[in-house]
Amino acid sequence: MTKNTKVNAAILIIGNEILSGRTQDTNTSTIANWLNSLGVKVNEVRVIPDDEQKIIDTLNILRKENNYVFTTGGIGPTHDDITAASVSKAFGLKYEVHKEAFKILEAYYKPGEFNEGRQKMVWMPQNAKLILNQTSGAPGFNVENVFCLPGVPSILKSMLGGLKNRIVGGEPILSHTISLRTVESEIANSLSKVQNQNKDVEIGSYPFFHAGKLGVSIVIRSENQSKIDECNSQILKFVNEKKIEVVKR
Amino acid sequence: MTKNTKVNAAILIIGNEILSGRTQDTNTSTIANWLNSLGVKVNEVRVIPDDEQKIIDTLNILRKENNYVFTTGGIGPTHDDITAASVSKAFGLKYEVHKEAFKILEAYYKPGEFNEGRQKMVWMPQNAKLILNQTSGAPGFNVENVFCLPGVPSILKSMLGGLKNRIVGGEPILSHTISLRTVESEIANSLSKVQNQNKDVEIGSYPFFHAGKLGVSIVIRSENQSKIDECNSQILKFVNEKKIEVVKR
Repeated sequence: MTKNTKVNAAILIIGNEILSGRTQDTNTSTIANWLNSLGVKVNEVRVIPDDEQKIIDTLNILRKENNYVFTTGGIGPTHDDITAASVSKAFGLKYEVHKEAFKILEAYYKPGEFNEGRQKMVWMPQNAKLILNQTSGAPGFNVENVFCLPGVPSILKSMLGGLKNRIVGGEPILSHTISLRTVESEIANSLSKVQNQNKDVEIGSYPFFHAGKLGVSIVIRSENQSKIDECNSQILKFVNEKKIEVVKR
Repeated sequence: MTKNTKVNAAILIIGNEILSGRTQDTNTSTIANWLNSLGVKVNEVRVIPDDEQKIIDTLNILRKENNYVFTTGGIGPTHDDITAASVSKAFGLKYEVHKEAFKILEAYYKPGEFNEGRQKMVWMPQNAKLILNQTSGAPGFNVENVFCLPGVPSILKSMLGGLKNRIVGGEPILSHTISLRTVESEIANSLSKVQNQNKDVEIGSYPFFHAGKLGVSIVIRSENQSKIDECNSQILKFVNEKKIEVVKR
């Protein structure tokens, strides 16, 4: 397949625990970093509650607007795990026992331990493709361009590797960071000029506080290394002229 | 004002750095926990790029669907800080110098240091109300039900206190957590029965790993303490029957 230069994705975080502030989401940055390495840019993230209609509506918007959608959460055995049933409804597919998933979990648990609660985890949209889980057995699943992963960060992380060959990315998104001992307002105008001269490069400016000192990180992102290099030298030019200390280049 | 029992909010995180995975968002949990204490429930979080049209469109949806919207990011002095201009357009308001903000920053900086870059931070939607910033000077702002805060977590945190009297919450959302030494599938059916008997209470089940041991936290949330107590005793009843160890109740 020819590589498309623009491939994008949305992340849909499903879970009341994130919205209540009880749990700090870390899956967004895990998935986003992994997608970047495959040349897929994350366009949008949404966090929504464990609410069937909200999951259906949101998924049906995101899966049409993006090349890929990754959901996290709601695929465990308890009553608040409603992702698989909701995804089935969003696609108009039957919600049924996935035979291969059943075999995997039957073999995973000791005889007699594959109880009713655990059997809930093999109910999936009809013909879903499994996403294998070496950590805790219960697989995630994939329907068309939607990939459903668990919410537990360590398990999610361990499952991404197995997905690599199902994602066709564009050119990898490269980035370069220059960290300066300055404040944003000192460089705002000069940086703005560099951005205007390089409109197809994404230039971000992020203040940081480290070891009691203020600084600014400038992040240059593009699929094209020579464009990054060009911006980098334009930035270092004004940084030298202003006699700003470069912490890291 | 009479307290409405259902008051909700959305959080809109604006920033390429979150979508690229470079920065881990922590503002969602800060804002959500603070809103909970005021009786405001977070319905939805969206993370979007520094893109004017996307900010306008998203804000215009969220501000109609929610009692309050909190934005984070994009109110600094650099070219990628476009929140104030975008919010002005979303509301159809002039984007202009805010006189009070100008005075605050003029006094905050040493003579001669209130340069062009810094002056960008006093451009706001017409008649915006300021959200004062004791940490780093530059204020946030509030237009109708939309509150625009900075992206730097420590600064954002320090600004929330000053906002308290502008938020009219409902009944505070109370919660109680029971931590058990078990796995979700052992309690899934019993917990499901408790949820079915208490449909207006939010019961969540969250696996945890701590000090090498597995466990499950059950979180019961409601505005009504006696409903929480009722669920709590129903849960402890089946927990005792199943001889499951309670780690924390």
